Amino acid sequence: MKALRVNAGRVDVKDVAKPEADGEALVRVLRSGICNTDLEIARGYAGFEGTIGHEFVGVVEQASNESGWVGKRVVGEINAGCGQCTLCRTGDPRHCPNRTVLGIHGRDGAHAEFLRLPVENLLEVPDAISDVEAVFVEPLAAAYGITEQVDITQATRVAVVGDGKLGILCARSLSGRSDGLTLIGKHRGKLDVAEKYGNVTGIMLDEIDEIMRSFDIVIEASGSESGFSTALDMARPRGKVVLKSTFHGTPTWNATRVVVDEITIVGSRCGRFGPALELLSNASIEVEDLLSDEFLLADGVAAMHRAADTGVLKVMLHM
Amino acid sequence: MKALRVNAGRVDVKDVAKPEADGEALVRVLRSGICNTDLEIARGYAGFEGTIGHEFVGVVEQASNESGWVGKRVVGEINAGCGQCTLCRTGDPRHCPNRTVLGIHGRDGAHAEFLRLPVENLLEVPDAISDVEAVFVEPLAAAYGITEQVDITQATRVAVVGDGKLGILCARSLSGRSDGLTLIGKHRGKLDVAEKYGNVTGIMLDEIDEIMRSFDIVIEASGSESGFSTALDMARPRGKVVLKSTFHGTPTWNATRVVVDEITIVGSRCGRFGPALELLSNASIEVEDLLSDEFLLADGVAAMHRAADTGVLKVMLHM
Repeated sequence: MKALRVNAGRVDVKDVAKPEADGEALVRVLRSGICNTDLEIARGYAGFEGTIGHEFVGVVEQASNESGWVGKRVVGEINAGCGQCTLCRTGDPRHCPNRTVLGIHGRDGAHAEFLRLPVENLLEVPDAISDVEAVFVEPLAAAYGITEQVDITQATRVAVVGDGKLGILCARSLSGRSDGLTLIGKHRGKLDVAEKYGNVTGIMLDEIDEIMRSFDIVIEASGSESGFSTALDMARPRGKVVLKSTFHGTPTWNATRVVVDEITIVGSRCGRFGPALELLSNASIEVEDLLSDEFLLADGVAAMHRAADTGVLKVMLHM
Repeated sequence: MKALRVNAGRVDVKDVAKPEADGEALVRVLRSGICNTDLEIARGYAGFEGTIGHEFVGVVEQASNESGWVGKRVVGEINAGCGQCTLCRTGDPRHCPNRTVLGIHGRDGAHAEFLRLPVENLLEVPDAISDVEAVFVEPLAAAYGITEQVDITQATRVAVVGDGKLGILCARSLSGRSDGLTLIGKHRGKLDVAEKYGNVTGIMLDEIDEIMRSFDIVIEASGSESGFSTALDMARPRGKVVLKSTFHGTPTWNATRVVVDEITIVGSRCGRFGPALELLSNASIEVEDLLSDEFLLADGVAAMHRAADTGVLKVMLHM
């Protein structure tokens, strides 16, 4: 089968053996989405080599008979725990120290004709959700998962830094929770896209002087080193900064301000898929307009280049 | 009167005018303590110029007649709010944007024969507390204030990084809350001091490999740039790192680990004085053995040098 793989610093579409189910589910991938993390991995982040990709929708082709999964359209949680450790046994395989992560760590990913995942990781996709929408479940879960880490009420002043796809998903998914969601970015065009749905106000980065230090919660979703510094500047004393994007490198920061103004910084990675599926089922969030381009898997290298272009939001592969 | 002042990058004892009460309380200082922040200010932190010092015990010499404060032995909260803004009116002058801070920002400090503070900042010192103990109220309040920002129960695994006076105060004051308090430092002698009271286990920095990533809460109290990195290494996935020390500069950090392991970082500055006075009144904490040396105010410059020496804990001035 074809797969988009990173090896020795190169990204290529290669022909590799179709995986065996081997006690897990074998999923035929319908579509997959390119995430900034894929671009980071291609640049060497996490030292991963193999098939990349962790956002997908597919159909289960093989699984144990009793499981009843064969033929179902599914998405899948990306962390597969060891099943033995305390974290796995208490229901949090996301932080299992021996976990594998789809297309990120120790497990081939979703930019391929087939992938395998434990059946426990699968969630059936309701008919009301399109394939394109389903590919957004993983990043939407990550965005909306913020609500499990910090309290957001109607009165909470929330800002998101970064007008890329993750920033827009954060802004749109949280705008229903708060009266005053502000999205800060560098691209007027992306801010305009963000404002189309939900209660989102886009502000250009060079116009933030008057709203500095005024937000209860600021979400850093830019993935850029300067984004963290901007996020700190936006938080009020005793406010919270949620770090949502993974980045390679060492963002500089004013540690003294964090102490003096008693800021809290919250690292945030994956969220649960259930609430994200619910947002899409209820049509509480619009995501299809964030799709900028699609490519055949065979053209995966071109798709990666396209995903790195300025002004581009989500790029997907179809198989 | 004599005062220990920082001006144009120099520390000197100078003769200056005795302050006027001018609607506040005038306090005759009995003793003051040198804090690492004083050393940082002398190096240029916060751009403060004037009389330094914010840890003291003194006797009220002037205050409005009705106040009843004259003649009382007192300590004083160091932040003086504007009294007008929302934060002041809701009882949190510690974060008032127009606040002055004793010996740190816009207000002459405690290494002097007299100081002035609003009467609202004063707390009477019970007879059971000695002058030396009373000087520890400010740093002890800062240490114990951590309990107002993070939950610590008997089962919480807590580590403190930094075996200086702030680290030891954190360790001793929190050891009554948790079964397993570990203090990590570079000086066996200071760790031995820390272990003398409370339920504290000292571990040398080069022996931490086996306890990495195992603590629920890690308190950074070393004031060194590498301390933050060590603190992050000690925290378990989804653990918390409390930043307790102010430092000049930009600590390097593994931001990706904060996101991937969903670490929370909590900036923490001043605590309330009431609970600290209570710990000392109940004899729940021992602090007098942390006094390394004392000097006359006139020898304040020598005292500052002494406070910066390796192996030295608290240095005090008496007037």
